[in-house]
Amino acid sequence: MNPRPASVSTRPVDDYRDSIEQLLRPLAARAVESVLMPEALGRQLADDVRSPIDLPVFRNSAMDGYAVRAESVVLAPVTLPLVGVVAAGAPGRTPLPPGSAVKVMTGAPLPPGADCVIPVEDTHADGDTVTVERGRNAGEYVREPGTDVRAGDLLATAGTALTPRHIAALAAVGLPMVAVFAAVRAAVITTGDELVAAGTILRPGQIYNSNGTALAAALAANGVTVVSVSHSTDDPARFRTLLSAATSAADVVFTSGGVSQGDFEVVKEVLEPLGGQFGSVAMQPGGPQGLTVVGGVPVLSFPGNPVSTMVSFEVFARPILRHLAGLAAVETYELPLRTAVPRSPVGKRQFLRGKLIRGQSGEPPGRLRHPIAVEVVSGPGSHLVASMAWADALIDVPAEVSTLPAGATVRVWSL
Amino acid sequence: MNPRPASVSTRPVDDYRDSIEQLLRPLAARAVESVLMPEALGRQLADDVRSPIDLPVFRNSAMDGYAVRAESVVLAPVTLPLVGVVAAGAPGRTPLPPGSAVKVMTGAPLPPGADCVIPVEDTHADGDTVTVERGRNAGEYVREPGTDVRAGDLLATAGTALTPRHIAALAAVGLPMVAVFAAVRAAVITTGDELVAAGTILRPGQIYNSNGTALAAALAANGVTVVSVSHSTDDPARFRTLLSAATSAADVVFTSGGVSQGDFEVVKEVLEPLGGQFGSVAMQPGGPQGLTVVGGVPVLSFPGNPVSTMVSFEVFARPILRHLAGLAAVETYELPLRTAVPRSPVGKRQFLRGKLIRGQSGEPPGRLRHPIAVEVVSGPGSHLVASMAWADALIDVPAEVSTLPAGATVRVWSL
Repeated sequence: MNPRPASVSTRPVDDYRDSIEQLLRPLAARAVESVLMPEALGRQLADDVRSPIDLPVFRNSAMDGYAVRAESVVLAPVTLPLVGVVAAGAPGRTPLPPGSAVKVMTGAPLPPGADCVIPVEDTHADGDTVTVERGRNAGEYVREPGTDVRAGDLLATAGTALTPRHIAALAAVGLPMVAVFAAVRAAVITTGDELVAAGTILRPGQIYNSNGTALAAALAANGVTVVSVSHSTDDPARFRTLLSAATSAADVVFTSGGVSQGDFEVVKEVLEPLGGQFGSVAMQPGGPQGLTVVGGVPVLSFPGNPVSTMVSFEVFARPILRHLAGLAAVETYELPLRTAVPRSPVGKRQFLRGKLIRGQSGEPPGRLRHPIAVEVVSGPGSHLVASMAWADALIDVPAEVSTLPAGATVRVWSL
Repeated sequence: MNPRPASVSTRPVDDYRDSIEQLLRPLAARAVESVLMPEALGRQLADDVRSPIDLPVFRNSAMDGYAVRAESVVLAPVTLPLVGVVAAGAPGRTPLPPGSAVKVMTGAPLPPGADCVIPVEDTHADGDTVTVERGRNAGEYVREPGTDVRAGDLLATAGTALTPRHIAALAAVGLPMVAVFAAVRAAVITTGDELVAAGTILRPGQIYNSNGTALAAALAANGVTVVSVSHSTDDPARFRTLLSAATSAADVVFTSGGVSQGDFEVVKEVLEPLGGQFGSVAMQPGGPQGLTVVGGVPVLSFPGNPVSTMVSFEVFARPILRHLAGLAAVETYELPLRTAVPRSPVGKRQFLRGKLIRGQSGEPPGRLRHPIAVEVVSGPGSHLVASMAWADALIDVPAEVSTLPAGATVRVWSL
């Protein structure tokens, strides 16, 4: 019934990631809903958006000043009778008589007949006349309709995640709402008899369950709606029940734990008979991985160690999830290492927690220079979860590398 | 009553930005609330967070394998009696008799007396015995308590905006909730008789009101809670009413429009008598600016043109608001121009809409190379709001520059 993903046993990282991305890519075709413009922030456009109007909508003044016919001010200085004022928002339909001027505010419609605007700095008003010191050519300080955007022009393409600048442009052409894709829905199932909820007192052998909270935060931060976070004991019946609920409510399911070589590997025990492929990916941390399709829903099974879980998410899930949500791709850099990597396991790609070092020169506060180097935050041990809090990057040490000196150039992924 | 900000007449950009930042910086002292960990994503820690526990909590196995005393396996290969199994989560309190082995899963507590773990690959189990092929030293494959973090160690500092990696670390030490600052509260008042709501039919002279929607989106995207968005006509009584409501509900108020040299400048008319400083900042777009403190609440008055409003927000408000929210600072780059800037007004710092050009070489999909150059998206006209949708950067052209050739290095701000 379920397609059987190719074996993951000792597969290279990129190859395994490709398998996952192939399974998740069909989620790009999701339900569409209409949302009001201010709530559309961060949502992903379902269709190309074209302007319904010309912008500017009408011929208007680019300055506070006086609208005239250019022919009336050729022989400046010249004094013209002032026949009125056009505020921004006025209909501006009264034609301008030849040889006269009308006061206009920035953005006000130009009266029919007027073809240029004299900035207020080049004039002297005196009661019902205005003296123009300097002539202007037809068209000067006039904004013609449609010079910014024409009705029908493309403003944003389907798939774009709307940022404030997109919202500003779509609002400026008067769109009250837009069609956006529903977010990808994910369910999380953590496993392990030894895990207990935060805030309880630990009994001997117990540890806190952090993967549910951590994966939920990571999913939410990458445009995914988390529909459930549940925890299973090592009892296969319990896991099966939670799996069934998860696959019926979500587009993709994430599990943590129960995938390695031990005696109580509940995830592997339940999913392998359903066609799941469990094995080792050539990476550290995060080697043991599983991939299953249950009733059409991809189930990604990460190892249970908190750092392994989060590195697995970064390497295998985050790029494709951001792509599906229309969010900016994960930034990568090639940077010199500030600290040496004394050893790295040959044959395994190692992902070290790193801290970006940024340039400082002459930048005002509140602005950040781009990174110029990276330093290693902690050793390779997969249990060093606290180091995650201090790291803002992953350092990608290739599989064939056994050691790196300080100064070596490494590929770095922004966290 | 209200402190009078220094005059803004033809002030340099940095100088005016400093005045605004000085007025907003006291908002760092805000109310504190406790939130459950999964909802703490993106919120700003009110206090330093220290670990309440050692991590690992107890001495445990780093591998699936057999826990032994190192002295029992010095003369490997050696066959030992197997006295039990310790799963992850078991209390693990039964001492290991000398000269025996116990099966342990990764993460399981080491029985008292055991001092190393033999990985399962180096063993052969046969019923109730296990043959160890290779000896190990005391401590090998054993995770000692507190080697990741000690009770009392600092995990994250006050002011940090919590990302998934922080949430993962705080969850791993069992914290169910954290103390975070309340968000900065902002109110937005747009002004202008010519503005009408999106979705209505334009009458002659009217344009759509986009600044309320655009500023609300920009504020929300930078960690600010928007408490109200209202629109005032050019009637001072109406503006006064909305201003009073805004200053009583918000920590900071943003207005758009009504600040330049025309006849119907409602913002300037109402705020100047309250001590507001209105004048021109040496920049384009966004020159006319106003700054007032009303009843202790800073009121930032931006010009009404949509592009001027958004550039004003980027230059004057976004860096300090991100700082107050604990969010990452705005990234800046120094990049070569792909396209020339034929003219720039001397004496005014010009902010051009730009598009970053990124490196491509050999990057898998879903990962983004850092920018290598920038191109200009549109001319300097301040009415080109649609260009905002296509730009992802501001190009900062210094005041003294009149023209820039392609290839010149420019300062660029990420939008």
